[in-house]
Amino acid sequence: MTDHSRIGEVLSTLDEELPRALDRLVEFLRIPSISTDPAYKGEVRRAAEWLCAELTSLGFEAGLRDTPGHPMVVAHSPKGTRRPLLFYGHYDVQPVDPLDLWERPPFEPQIEDTPQGKVIRGRGASDDKGQLMTFVEAFRAWKAVHGSLPSDLVLLFEGEEESGSPSLRPFLRENAEELRAGVAMICDTGLYADGRPAITTQLRGLYGDEIVLRAADRDLHSGSFGGLAANPIQVLVDALSTIKDATGRVTLPGFYDGVEELSGELRADWDALGFDPGEFLSRVGLKHPIGEQGRTGLEMVWNRPTFEINGITGGYTGDGFKTVLPAEARAKVSFRLTGAQDPERIREAFRAHIRAHVPADCTVEFHGHGASPASRMDISDPAFTAAKAALSQEWGREAAYIGAGGSIPIAGDFKEILGMDSMLIGFARDDDRIHSPNEKYDLDSFAKGARSWARILAALG
Amino acid sequence: MTDHSRIGEVLSTLDEELPRALDRLVEFLRIPSISTDPAYKGEVRRAAEWLCAELTSLGFEAGLRDTPGHPMVVAHSPKGTRRPLLFYGHYDVQPVDPLDLWERPPFEPQIEDTPQGKVIRGRGASDDKGQLMTFVEAFRAWKAVHGSLPSDLVLLFEGEEESGSPSLRPFLRENAEELRAGVAMICDTGLYADGRPAITTQLRGLYGDEIVLRAADRDLHSGSFGGLAANPIQVLVDALSTIKDATGRVTLPGFYDGVEELSGELRADWDALGFDPGEFLSRVGLKHPIGEQGRTGLEMVWNRPTFEINGITGGYTGDGFKTVLPAEARAKVSFRLTGAQDPERIREAFRAHIRAHVPADCTVEFHGHGASPASRMDISDPAFTAAKAALSQEWGREAAYIGAGGSIPIAGDFKEILGMDSMLIGFARDDDRIHSPNEKYDLDSFAKGARSWARILAALG
Repeated sequence: MTDHSRIGEVLSTLDEELPRALDRLVEFLRIPSISTDPAYKGEVRRAAEWLCAELTSLGFEAGLRDTPGHPMVVAHSPKGTRRPLLFYGHYDVQPVDPLDLWERPPFEPQIEDTPQGKVIRGRGASDDKGQLMTFVEAFRAWKAVHGSLPSDLVLLFEGEEESGSPSLRPFLRENAEELRAGVAMICDTGLYADGRPAITTQLRGLYGDEIVLRAADRDLHSGSFGGLAANPIQVLVDALSTIKDATGRVTLPGFYDGVEELSGELRADWDALGFDPGEFLSRVGLKHPIGEQGRTGLEMVWNRPTFEINGITGGYTGDGFKTVLPAEARAKVSFRLTGAQDPERIREAFRAHIRAHVPADCTVEFHGHGASPASRMDISDPAFTAAKAALSQEWGREAAYIGAGGSIPIAGDFKEILGMDSMLIGFARDDDRIHSPNEKYDLDSFAKGARSWARILAALG
Repeated sequence: MTDHSRIGEVLSTLDEELPRALDRLVEFLRIPSISTDPAYKGEVRRAAEWLCAELTSLGFEAGLRDTPGHPMVVAHSPKGTRRPLLFYGHYDVQPVDPLDLWERPPFEPQIEDTPQGKVIRGRGASDDKGQLMTFVEAFRAWKAVHGSLPSDLVLLFEGEEESGSPSLRPFLRENAEELRAGVAMICDTGLYADGRPAITTQLRGLYGDEIVLRAADRDLHSGSFGGLAANPIQVLVDALSTIKDATGRVTLPGFYDGVEELSGELRADWDALGFDPGEFLSRVGLKHPIGEQGRTGLEMVWNRPTFEINGITGGYTGDGFKTVLPAEARAKVSFRLTGAQDPERIREAFRAHIRAHVPADCTVEFHGHGASPASRMDISDPAFTAAKAALSQEWGREAAYIGAGGSIPIAGDFKEILGMDSMLIGFARDDDRIHSPNEKYDLDSFAKGARSWARILAALG
């Protein structure tokens, strides 16, 4: 068992070491590890090597593990009797274009004073190098105080997160025994909107599909054929408009199988967030929630499944006008999934619905784009309660269990391949401009983030 | 009164003169009068001058009339006591690209033997120089036999038909007194599909509109906003899918006001055409007519109004997938109109329907693209009966009154601005490849076309 009295020393060490920790982060951020651009392949590897050297210096048994893409960094602390914990982050970053919108070079990070406090600005500061280093600095301070690392830690740092993680699932499968832990810590998320610390305990799943509907073997003139020949845009529009009813519910048979109502505990946490959907929408020029009747705003985005048309195209879309009956129309659609909804069954129901709308001499083709179920963590695991308490203590306000409307595929992958739940805890803020020019990370997020992990390590000890 | 016995002489003259007539047509076709390309401005004018000289040599009082675009050629035969007839054609041609698909230079026409008979091949051979010259050769032969032109002819040959006729309506308005006649002859159409001579007596009108639907002030992530924020594609799809019901009828209030059932006479003619919608559709890879229940194929394309979505776009339409909730979605739609349907009322009903589907915080913008009512000729005018009989005699088979599913704006313009009906009579064939490489016109169409006009002139004398 960890000596709880020493957490104070670990936190003091973190505070004292903050300037050095920032120097290290700056050094890490100076490596342009843009994973999606082959021109930066060497730099991505250099970032992995930098990280590996840091971890080795702390006493981890760390190494680069080659994949068909960029390497994984895997590290282990000494074996012991703790419940193993896996820490996941990524060391690659997004491209920087448009470069001319950056106020300073994206890979020459610096500390800036802003009206909202000090920030470190540069590509990757928040997503995800700054967050990843909150782990590393917590381990370092722990080592400094205790003389040794916490035992039974597994670190997995990926270099392809910003380019679709093509190697991740095969790597998890091939190294399942080595990587499996009691629970995973994922640092790729943020504080709740108002700065409240939060643990994301459920994420919606996703099923995406593309429909290609073909009618005549060429574009037709609507004067010669209009009224007689099938118009694939009309067929598509009719098929898509019947997927939701007037109350916003999806009409596909069996669609709601597995969808679960919110538990009392989560509902209380979510209600306490004081989410105002009108205010939320007003930031993007809207006012009125358009989701299912009788649901709160947070239910709509976190706990209810959706159907969305993400793209549609057909016929003449240029300037002016062309009275064409097109040969083809296309749509990209996606379903956000919750609870135990089965993406495969939804795929079947969706495709059957579309096919039922397609006239005899039209054809339809589907191109699936991913199918992942929703992730729901088991919050009865005492690790969740302990982490939540640690976060509340560090930030001086009650931490909340929250949901996420989007998918974080890694959480689903850990569940599916390694059979473990994830705690998604991060300290990014809504205004961090991740993926955009002038990305930043608050020094407060960095400092209190590292302190949070130290407390969580102690609490789970 | 014309001496009817001399029509035989006129026809013989046409037959004897055919080689010279073809030489003239070749000369005319050698002028690259591409109206849409400013580089050919001088050539367009040269074609007008060539035509004007031909007409003057026949005894017409002919002249070029300048417009903001290309000139009109207007010619008059001597005043007399006939009911005035206006003849309309156009001397400009389509561009020739893709040039590499032409088997010979498009402006070096020649007579070719084909398995289907002799043709003259070159840009404009069918559309519309060849057809226009069927008028001119008929006048020439008439003059040769009678010593003078038929009286009371007005010729209007346009040089902007292939570039949208921007000067036509103003020109008609400014010269209405001069151009108004009892009936107009328009030579810009074809034989019926099987080669039967035909007079087009009704054309569908058109109302086009573009819808721009806007929701949020930026593209949104469907994970963060899906289920809560309005999706303009869904709004658009829902609005468009309710414009037609399951039987193919348009649901807009008052939409069918003014639509007329086919008269017994037209129905008999149309039935006699033996139109097989399945066969017609099979040429473009379809089989099943998709129009209003209980209507014949020809009714669907000629006598029933339609609603068509001609183009739609919104969200992400590139390769791969993007879970975006777009800020905007657009559609271009058109209605083909029949009978006395009023485009303005249909515009109002359509826009009211769309607006009723738009949620409070979305906006919709419309961009109208033309509104023209259907054209229906008064076939109780004896000129129609006479022309139909003349055509039947020349072609050795019963001529038919037919409809057209598309608009020929000139017919509507003549009706609206000059108050006169048009007889649309032409000799083009479906395989003439107008607007495409290797355009041709059958010598048979040219020779019998000129003979047809001679007969019609005699019959209307």
